[in-house]
Amino acid sequence: MFWKKKPARRRAPALGPMTLQPIGYVRNDVAQPRPHGWERVESEVVVLPEHEGKLEGIEGYSHVIIVSWLDLARGAPDHPETLTVASGNTYGILATRSQLRPNHLGVSAVALVGREGAVLRVRGLDAIDGTPVLDVKPYLPEYDAIPGARIPEV
Amino acid sequence: MFWKKKPARRRAPALGPMTLQPIGYVRNDVAQPRPHGWERVESEVVVLPEHEGKLEGIEGYSHVIIVSWLDLARGAPDHPETLTVASGNTYGILATRSQLRPNHLGVSAVALVGREGAVLRVRGLDAIDGTPVLDVKPYLPEYDAIPGARIPEV
Repeated sequence: MFWKKKPARRRAPALGPMTLQPIGYVRNDVAQPRPHGWERVESEVVVLPEHEGKLEGIEGYSHVIIVSWLDLARGAPDHPETLTVASGNTYGILATRSQLRPNHLGVSAVALVGREGAVLRVRGLDAIDGTPVLDVKPYLPEYDAIPGARIPEV
Repeated sequence: MFWKKKPARRRAPALGPMTLQPIGYVRNDVAQPRPHGWERVESEVVVLPEHEGKLEGIEGYSHVIIVSWLDLARGAPDHPETLTVASGNTYGILATRSQLRPNHLGVSAVALVGREGAVLRVRGLDAIDGTPVLDVKPYLPEYDAIPGARIPEV
């Protein structure tokens, strides 16, 4: 009897809800959501005191990834399955960076301008004042930068 | 009387817990966590049927960002504040990509090899079989790729 390949054991995925706790929040001068114009916005990512020690050494990185919880999107009047862009083409919401996705998570690669204790000063974060922050990660170009990635012609 | 600058109005951040719901899960042949060796791993991201329509058009992108919930990390025996790397230098856990961060979120930029309905075939996803997926985003090189980002000398 022949076996082409040992069948892989499968782990049942945990598909129940999960509870996350913010580790900090955004401070900047942007009070209203907007689609563009974030490149030059300077923000503070204020990390809660109990997490300050977990930032040690992050100032050695020029860029960080901020994972935020786009809390205003939750109350949006409409949660469309698709979006039709200016060209007339339609994309599923997960094929866009819209906030109106099933989980309102933002992932932003931003310049780390400085750190003072538990406060990170960053440039280019596309999140309004008061947005909860779930995670801060160092940006690793070997892993995160794919300059040749292709996108459709919209 | 002079005002140098109009004081910005501040929004109180919502710092309570938030509940997220997986939109899918990972299928691959990797049963145990490992630190390296993910580059050539092929995985399926199985999106739940109710979200399939939200993927429309994502196949036009060469790469996607997968936000996963590293559920095994939750049960880890130790949740250190810092990690000491091979060089002897110590980094806060948020200055590493370790899974043992406060919220066990993974952010991975991966090649999108193909799509069949609600299943995305991807290469390079560093998540074991059965890992819940919270979000799928198109990788936008203009926004996500920072090839010149600097990292410390470890």
